[in-house]
Amino acid sequence: MMDGETIKEPPQEWGPTAWSHLSAVRDRSLLIQCITNFVSMDLVANTLLSVGASPAMLHSTEEIPDFTPHVHALYVNVGTLSSDWLPAMMAAARLATKLGKPWVLDPVAAGASRFRLNACLELLQLKPTVIRGNASEILALSQASLAPTTGVDSSHESMDAVEAAKCLAQASGGVVAVSGAVDIITQGNRLVGVHNGVPMLQKITATGCAVTALIAAFVAVDPLHAFEATVSAFSVFGIAGEMGMEQAKGPASLRMHLIDSLYGLDQVALLSRINITTALPGHDT
Amino acid sequence: MMDGETIKEPPQEWGPTAWSHLSAVRDRSLLIQCITNFVSMDLVANTLLSVGASPAMLHSTEEIPDFTPHVHALYVNVGTLSSDWLPAMMAAARLATKLGKPWVLDPVAAGASRFRLNACLELLQLKPTVIRGNASEILALSQASLAPTTGVDSSHESMDAVEAAKCLAQASGGVVAVSGAVDIITQGNRLVGVHNGVPMLQKITATGCAVTALIAAFVAVDPLHAFEATVSAFSVFGIAGEMGMEQAKGPASLRMHLIDSLYGLDQVALLSRINITTALPGHDT
Amino acid sequence: MMDGETIKEPPQEWGPTAWSHLSAVRDRSLLIQCITNFVSMDLVANTLLSVGASPAMLHSTEEIPDFTPHVHALYVNVGTLSSDWLPAMMAAARLATKLGKPWVLDPVAAGASRFRLNACLELLQLKPTVIRGNASEILALSQASLAPTTGVDSSHESMDAVEAAKCLAQASGGVVAVSGAVDIITQGNRLVGVHNGVPMLQKITATGCAVTALIAAFVAVDPLHAFEATVSAFSVFGIAGEMGMEQAKGPASLRMHLIDSLYGLDQVALLSRINITTALPGHDT
Repeated sequence: MMDGETIKEPPQEWGPTAWSHLSAVRDRSLLIQCITNFVSMDLVANTLLSVGASPAMLHSTEEIPDFTPHVHALYVNVGTLSSDWLPAMMAAARLATKLGKPWVLDPVAAGASRFRLNACLELLQLKPTVIRGNASEILALSQASLAPTTGVDSSHESMDAVEAAKCLAQASGGVVAVSGAVDIITQGNRLVGVHNGVPMLQKITATGCAVTALIAAFVAVDPLHAFEATVSAFSVFGIAGEMGMEQAKGPASLRMHLIDSLYGLDQVALLSRINITTALPGHDT
Repeated sequence: MMDGETIKEPPQEWGPTAWSHLSAVRDRSLLIQCITNFVSMDLVANTLLSVGASPAMLHSTEEIPDFTPHVHALYVNVGTLSSDWLPAMMAAARLATKLGKPWVLDPVAAGASRFRLNACLELLQLKPTVIRGNASEILALSQASLAPTTGVDSSHESMDAVEAAKCLAQASGGVVAVSGAVDIITQGNRLVGVHNGVPMLQKITATGCAVTALIAAFVAVDPLHAFEATVSAFSVFGIAGEMGMEQAKGPASLRMHLIDSLYGLDQVALLSRINITTALPGHDT
Repeated sequence: MMDGETIKEPPQEWGPTAWSHLSAVRDRSLLIQCITNFVSMDLVANTLLSVGASPAMLHSTEEIPDFTPHVHALYVNVGTLSSDWLPAMMAAARLATKLGKPWVLDPVAAGASRFRLNACLELLQLKPTVIRGNASEILALSQASLAPTTGVDSSHESMDAVEAAKCLAQASGGVVAVSGAVDIITQGNRLVGVHNGVPMLQKITATGCAVTALIAAFVAVDPLHAFEATVSAFSVFGIAGEMGMEQAKGPASLRMHLIDSLYGLDQVALLSRINITTALPGHDT
């Protein structure tokens, strides 16, 4: 870390914490409202169902006052943003914040256009509990600058966005997570890296969206520890990816085995595979 | 049954009837218009294709006068309802009814909001041939009451909605089907339960939407016997689920094997597995 | 051919050409903007990712001026057309043409309604680099006539549309491709048939959309040879389908193995399987 403020995390705690979070998600009938992009809806819904949560893709402004008060968490993803969907995203996020419900923002391709960047910045004002993006997205958000050449995929490594993530976390007051070979999660003066997962997950559309949805479910069971819940969600998703990869022959079979593994993940596998560091390469902690 | 009016169904007929329906669906090049939710489009289309029907996801009001007269059945699903899609749902349903074409309604999360409930009640006025929902949805529709806590998943067993389904069937004049561990199908004074299927189907998004699409195809080949066609569709889908489950390791592989099984389902498997009762537990028939 | 103008293609060149195109697609980080239908988004994105390209489903008119100038190719698909999406399709296609970027049109169900046919004809005016449809779609476009009975599936064989495809290619100045048991690709006085692929691909939704997206990626790496790039894309997709079919038990497992095979396709398999003819049955060349 650039400064000496980052707290050293006790790594041995992460496994039991993640198992505890996953068990709580499975035990409760969580209702997660998802206002997400068209590409991701199928995988997001199946990811949530695989851990026992109930996804609800309701995106009409007319429905938010009746429905959003009953959900356990809200997930907003701007992947296929258009001007007619933005008001519902704003209304749902505003209501979630007002009611003290956790909500999670996925600023897909934040730097792709001025319209999209502004929408993300407006959503940021509504205090998301967690913001999860790739390095290019977090850099665009943090710098409020366009980067239309990257599309929805990142042209940066997550490590490149560590400082941007910390700034964004401090500015927004939320948890900020940067997906990558190492997933970075930071809040205030805390920062950890999750080393679970496999590169081929990036060859499946919407896996980033899916892990963000999983974060929403995990934060819903432990809203006072959104940082820990986010770390748990990344670990669980990454471990399911590793287990899926052992049976996969390519991205499409990985997608199938990922969800099956998420559904079947047990405590032994989770505890033996979880791989979290508090010291990141090239960063003193 | 609460009253003595329910007709006892001859159970031995259901197997050959279901096979006859499935064969007819496979033999004809059915064109099924689907105005369905974003989450379900992929699975709905693949379900229809797996039985040889041709799905057409056309949802523009501009296209309905030209296109809907040529379809064999219409499927309307309000899962991701918004005010800009409702007029097309209404227009297509109105035209289908006017032209004597079967149409099927899937009132997803009917009780999630006042807006959605009203939309479903308006669609009901247009005389759907079949209404297929889970218990919470059928209860919400029958009572015209909100139940926003359930989202798209049911907080009730299908058995809890038997009386509501009968009332709704009588009031609407259509067939009403309640998905669940036992699928209930009722019309007028008829009522059967389909016991095929596996619990894990509920862990795959859009399986309810998919079976409703299948009902549309089955009713299209036997519009004068919508009750029997609906029972056949449930049986066939449930049996494909059971056969898929024998090879599945979780919900994502079940989804794949379900569609493969639907595609390959033969007469022997159908006849040996079909499981339909006319006496429901706790209900005298 | 009806006339003697069609140039005889040297068939032995197609294998190395296709491998060269596929390798180039894999080597470059292509950004492909996709304004496509809801049903196809998942498969289109996963198809592009499987060959190393980056799909970007951005469809807002507000975003096009910022984003489209940075993409390598544009893909427009009218499958779930509505009046609020058409302006973005037009704007993106107009900008792509203006900037000299390749763009590919998939006129799904072109003859399903007057609204849709007119939209396709308007898009045609914007000079797509490649137009890919099934026989019914190409016939409808070429004749500017309605054929609402066919929906999104074809009621004609690709051979029935050879002359229509040639007329459309000459009128539009672009490459025209007709999917079918034999895929026909034509431009000016050139015409070849790709015999790779398996019939079951038609039982998977959006495989036509997926191959069109693949064409966009292939044309992006060789924009001056759009004809050859289109032939390569069809061959590669068809070969992946054949390899997938060897492991498939039905359409859903074929879909998985198709994408896995596309991801893993190597030079030996491509060169040994590619099957292209320049003389079509019933047509003198």
